[in-house]
Amino acid sequence: MKKLLVFGVGLIGGSLALALKSAGAGWHITGIGRNGESLQEALSLGIIDAAATDIASAVKGVDVILIATPVAQIPGILRNIAPHLEAQTIVTDAGSTKHDVALQARALLGPASSRFVPGHPIAGAEKSGPAAALASLYQQKNVVLTPEHDTDPAALETVRQLWLSTGARIRIMSASEHDAIFAAVSHLPHLLAFALVNELANRDDASLFFEFAASGFRDFTRIAGSSPEMWRDISLANRTALLAELDLYQAALSSLRASLEQSDAPALQAIFECASQARNTWANQQQDANWKN
Amino acid sequence: MKKLLVFGVGLIGGSLALALKSAGAGWHITGIGRNGESLQEALSLGIIDAAATDIASAVKGVDVILIATPVAQIPGILRNIAPHLEAQTIVTDAGSTKHDVALQARALLGPASSRFVPGHPIAGAEKSGPAAALASLYQQKNVVLTPEHDTDPAALETVRQLWLSTGARIRIMSASEHDAIFAAVSHLPHLLAFALVNELANRDDASLFFEFAASGFRDFTRIAGSSPEMWRDISLANRTALLAELDLYQAALSSLRASLEQSDAPALQAIFECASQARNTWANQQQDANWKN
Repeated sequence: MKKLLVFGVGLIGGSLALALKSAGAGWHITGIGRNGESLQEALSLGIIDAAATDIASAVKGVDVILIATPVAQIPGILRNIAPHLEAQTIVTDAGSTKHDVALQARALLGPASSRFVPGHPIAGAEKSGPAAALASLYQQKNVVLTPEHDTDPAALETVRQLWLSTGARIRIMSASEHDAIFAAVSHLPHLLAFALVNELANRDDASLFFEFAASGFRDFTRIAGSSPEMWRDISLANRTALLAELDLYQAALSSLRASLEQSDAPALQAIFECASQARNTWANQQQDANWKN
Repeated sequence: MKKLLVFGVGLIGGSLALALKSAGAGWHITGIGRNGESLQEALSLGIIDAAATDIASAVKGVDVILIATPVAQIPGILRNIAPHLEAQTIVTDAGSTKHDVALQARALLGPASSRFVPGHPIAGAEKSGPAAALASLYQQKNVVLTPEHDTDPAALETVRQLWLSTGARIRIMSASEHDAIFAAVSHLPHLLAFALVNELANRDDASLFFEFAASGFRDFTRIAGSSPEMWRDISLANRTALLAELDLYQAALSSLRASLEQSDAPALQAIFECASQARNTWANQQQDANWKN
């Protein structure tokens, strides 16, 4: 039986463990983490087969290590596991940014970094923690893997098969391509929503504005209710790509502002029409894809 | 029986008519519009008591005229009704912007503009047209009225009572206060979402970005799927306030960008925390308010 060690047995790591068990993929799964309560919860829910707290002994004889913690904890974990990695041990992660993680692995794992496979499962849910884990979370979802030029092909294939067992679709791309895409469709929207609500909340008459905010505002700002710590860390981890996307967006906004200042009705309509059509086409495709699942 | 004439018998005008009937408020309601099909539909659904197409005869003997059409049609209607208004006729509207409408009324209605009461019911729904009209649409919802310094107090009171019959709460403020509030909490978010989707959609590799967009993107961009014509007209109608809000937002975004560029983790966290707390407090209050209804 192959051995998997999972750092972080919450929604992401726990769902992978449950999916592997549900698929009968033949993995013995050990959970490891700083939070003893979460580990006991994961054990009692049957998510993991064993719980560990000592890294040196836990890494022994392991085939794959998955790091499924918040991104800020990844470098510390890489540093701690590095001395104990064996010749066969493959390491992968589930962080939302990839270029920074690949750099950290190169710096902290030394020659073993060729067996580090950066990964990002694109799945989430409202809840977190072991109790939120679902065997079906990754079915038909994208899992992005971003191998480097010197990544061991066998290590990549092992991680690919691990995720395929969960029902996920695998997408291979470069770390920089990954980071640009998620800066644009996820990280930038979060920043824009945070900036809007923060700006409003700091006005003297903020309560008057919030009183008249309605359903459009509710949806637009939902992501501004996300974890400040997590998004601080993601923003910093993906700083370069995010700054580039912010610049593109600010230029687009300035151009829209100029059209509005000049009362250029056709220009405004062209922008709104293109956006409306693209957004509705995308939403319909998403809905179709969900219905097919 | 008092006589109400409604321009536009869709969601907004139709729901007011149904609410007045449901409250037994004693109004005879005539619908008028360019779309014969909508008028017939409103008649057959019992939303209106009569349908009219000729403005001169329809205005005769009317106590209140409600203009519940898209904002771009309001000046044309004011121009057409002006010659036929009688000494008792009160005119009000349901447009999303108020300063421009008040100016138009002043210019087009002449002395009768003192009996024009600018209004904005804050209620909406996914659907439109007479079939979407609901007697309960305005219950516990805010209706903003923005009288001018020379608005006839009796006219204001009549319009206030009309909306109170629907179960709405009345908020009186100046047109410029109204326009600033809605520029901030509604019009600006629409512009930001339109700008984001338009910018993405115009990239050569747009489909790659849309492929990885997920639930956060879906909610953030929902308002970018709105009617391009309607939002072109609202943006132009509220141009001055919207430009001011855009400037405040661009300054806030530039400041956030500077914090990110300097990798200033505490500054980023402070912005995200303030936003997250304000957004979640607001959303919880909204939920509480909805439960009470």
